[in-house]
Amino acid sequence: MSPFVAEILGTALLILLGGGVVASSVLKDTKSSGAGWMVITTGWAMGVFIGVFVAAPYSGAHINPAVTLALAIEGSFAWQDVPMYIVAQVIGAMIGSGTVYVLFKDHFDATDNPEGKRAIFCTDPAIPNTFRNLMSEIVGTFVLIMAVFFITGAEIQGEEGVPVGLGAVGAIPIAFVVWSIGLSLGGLTGYAINPARDLGPRIMHFLLPIKGKTHSNWSYSWIPILGPLIGASLATYLHLILS
Amino acid sequence: MSPFVAEILGTALLILLGGGVVASSVLKDTKSSGAGWMVITTGWAMGVFIGVFVAAPYSGAHINPAVTLALAIEGSFAWQDVPMYIVAQVIGAMIGSGTVYVLFKDHFDATDNPEGKRAIFCTDPAIPNTFRNLMSEIVGTFVLIMAVFFITGAEIQGEEGVPVGLGAVGAIPIAFVVWSIGLSLGGLTGYAINPARDLGPRIMHFLLPIKGKTHSNWSYSWIPILGPLIGASLATYLHLILS
Amino acid sequence: MSPFVAEILGTALLILLGGGVVASSVLKDTKSSGAGWMVITTGWAMGVFIGVFVAAPYSGAHINPAVTLALAIEGSFAWQDVPMYIVAQVIGAMIGSGTVYVLFKDHFDATDNPEGKRAIFCTDPAIPNTFRNLMSEIVGTFVLIMAVFFITGAEIQGEEGVPVGLGAVGAIPIAFVVWSIGLSLGGLTGYAINPARDLGPRIMHFLLPIKGKTHSNWSYSWIPILGPLIGASLATYLHLILS
Amino acid sequence: MSPFVAEILGTALLILLGGGVVASSVLKDTKSSGAGWMVITTGWAMGVFIGVFVAAPYSGAHINPAVTLALAIEGSFAWQDVPMYIVAQVIGAMIGSGTVYVLFKDHFDATDNPEGKRAIFCTDPAIPNTFRNLMSEIVGTFVLIMAVFFITGAEIQGEEGVPVGLGAVGAIPIAFVVWSIGLSLGGLTGYAINPARDLGPRIMHFLLPIKGKTHSNWSYSWIPILGPLIGASLATYLHLILS
Repeated sequence: MSPFVAEILGTALLILLGGGVVASSVLKDTKSSGAGWMVITTGWAMGVFIGVFVAAPYSGAHINPAVTLALAIEGSFAWQDVPMYIVAQVIGAMIGSGTVYVLFKDHFDATDNPEGKRAIFCTDPAIPNTFRNLMSEIVGTFVLIMAVFFITGAEIQGEEGVPVGLGAVGAIPIAFVVWSIGLSLGGLTGYAINPARDLGPRIMHFLLPIKGKTHSNWSYSWIPILGPLIGASLATYLHLILS
Repeated sequence: MSPFVAEILGTALLILLGGGVVASSVLKDTKSSGAGWMVITTGWAMGVFIGVFVAAPYSGAHINPAVTLALAIEGSFAWQDVPMYIVAQVIGAMIGSGTVYVLFKDHFDATDNPEGKRAIFCTDPAIPNTFRNLMSEIVGTFVLIMAVFFITGAEIQGEEGVPVGLGAVGAIPIAFVVWSIGLSLGGLTGYAINPARDLGPRIMHFLLPIKGKTHSNWSYSWIPILGPLIGASLATYLHLILS
Repeated sequence: MSPFVAEILGTALLILLGGGVVASSVLKDTKSSGAGWMVITTGWAMGVFIGVFVAAPYSGAHINPAVTLALAIEGSFAWQDVPMYIVAQVIGAMIGSGTVYVLFKDHFDATDNPEGKRAIFCTDPAIPNTFRNLMSEIVGTFVLIMAVFFITGAEIQGEEGVPVGLGAVGAIPIAFVVWSIGLSLGGLTGYAINPARDLGPRIMHFLLPIKGKTHSNWSYSWIPILGPLIGASLATYLHLILS
Repeated sequence: MSPFVAEILGTALLILLGGGVVASSVLKDTKSSGAGWMVITTGWAMGVFIGVFVAAPYSGAHINPAVTLALAIEGSFAWQDVPMYIVAQVIGAMIGSGTVYVLFKDHFDATDNPEGKRAIFCTDPAIPNTFRNLMSEIVGTFVLIMAVFFITGAEIQGEEGVPVGLGAVGAIPIAFVVWSIGLSLGGLTGYAINPARDLGPRIMHFLLPIKGKTHSNWSYSWIPILGPLIGASLATYLHLILS
């Protein structure tokens, strides 16, 4: 599998599962309607788990432009491949959220909650505040990228952060990191911590003929893009200084 | 232990624990009555965990006709053994759900909820829609089988997907995959993602003298059989193309 | 550390943490009062996790007479050591539940719920029924012991079921097995699945001057002793026949 | 990275994530407001997970003066480095809780619950009782330190308790131990089990201009300092006697 395809596949699985758990909780008449924060954060964490171990052997499982940027700044990933990875990640995210829409179509139609429907696609802040929302995405992504560097750092681990020999077990730490960020910081802005995770599905929300949808909140859309990129850069520079 | 017995044992454990967690939540007067989606999805995930690591050394722990089909298409499992495996899986599922009935008999008698009682045995859709329900089972099983191939693919793993040397720890990823599918997509059709998991218990629901039971919904029963088989086939062909 | 001391320590930790999570949920005015089934089953599972990895290098971490019996029947544990292990397990369970009482004393005093207070110490059935309650304990313990044999069976694992080289990570599967049994079958009788876990704390409930306590339900007490021993024996004989 | 910086970084991550999950649940208008005990204990456990595996290669990941004291008593850590580690841990905790305040500032302003706001920073007892609150912190920390010694004790583990070769996976057991203590004993005093985790944020609560804050409860503050140090000492001496 080429890295391009692996990034599409990994990101599509991530967003299918992450978008799915939000749809299951937010939409009416599912078997888990109203399931709550524990279900949502566990669902996203396990979605990252699957996306990571599927893509890891082929692309290093970035499935997130913030990870791609961090590894490029650090010097372990070629700058010339950055655009290709990001394109793949956004395409994957669009495929994943489009699949969520097709699967949950009847539940979308049965639900009268425009903001809830949008939350299945893209993030929005609990309390809008440009500075603080940006900070939330910066700090959440900082934790993610810091963790990625230290998971990568263990002795017998191979390229790209997945330990050689542990197989998919080696992807559990990254799932737990995302679980942590979601549980602890996700309540602020919905923890995009991944520009593709937010932009791809937001485009789909804009394009899809969702019944009773509201606007796609483009005025907020730059925060879950810029915040993660700043957070990733800060984590990388701090890591370079410290190591 | 022969593969036939191992598949029966693994599937029986899976369905005992999976059916049990639904019974505990749905039926009246248990200590966990009404426990909710987090309990149900974790219960199924851990039931898969046990079923897999018990059967793994003897049969490869398919415990699911969709897995058996996928490995046969891929070429790593002999077509002539497919029927034997599937028969064992359906027998195991029947034993498991029969045991749930015996254990929870007093709670079945105390509960007045025919659809809830049936849900302990077999799946049904949140919103009936042939195309979309089939899609739900196809996509859920696609994720499962895709994950199975990539868990299998790690370097030091032995035959049949369980890493050599990690023992039961090596079965944690498959449990997390099932956790993920349940949390994120299970709210649509109850995530059979396994024809034996649905058919065996549905036969038991039909046969057992459950107090105040409703019909066994045979008109829906082909979807949780065909959907997983299609999803498994698609995942396998995509895996073969990509690798 | 001698095996005797290790079994006391491991069982005391198990019951301190298991009894503690029930006390936290059942008693008034704790920070987690009324927390529910997910908290209770996770608390017990993680209590087993700690008890097992602490005692494992010294005694094999039975911390359960049903495990001791199973290994003796199987031939991997000396019959002459069985009484010593069981005595240690009951002593450990008494120490653990006594500690729970001391820690939660103010909350015991603030709570008016005699059955709830007893549930912190020992199990009782959701619906009393001698045959079915016994069956529940037999089947739950059967699953536990079957799992113990197969966790033990992996290639690089050392004596007593804890994989050499994985350290405490190797105890995660047994924690997940107990999580599973609790989630799926625990709602019936409170899943003793361990005679010492029930008897030791029941003795403490009888002896301690708990404010407003009810009787210690001795007429039920033989079921969580005999059931697990039968379940362990059945699992062991089945394992011997199959292997 | 120097041990001093690693301890600051690890403790800051721990308190950012631990304080964050309490803030998310306690404060108004977050996406997880009122999320409950399962979310809070899982959030703290995963915060420990990240703090530990990030700091482990550089400082041994004490991130807790009780751990530092225990290792010094045991003889595996130099007494002369104890003050430096503790200073780093308190600084890290202050940075972590200061970051929580900045991130959740709008939610602090929107919430009218002075005790809840303080609980984001430092612990307080469910029922005030000097002897029993101290006991709660002693016992909780005893379990933590006992576990630390036995996690450290496994064969292929390196210095400072993180198994060589497992990478971040080797930090999962300590996360599960903290999960266990929180679930089972945390409902009594909020489980500081770490003097820096309580003191650093309490200083921040005292210093920060939090809207509508109450006093910083300094009369209680010695219990989550002394209790953990006593508990750590007892666990260490018992471990030395037993081994």
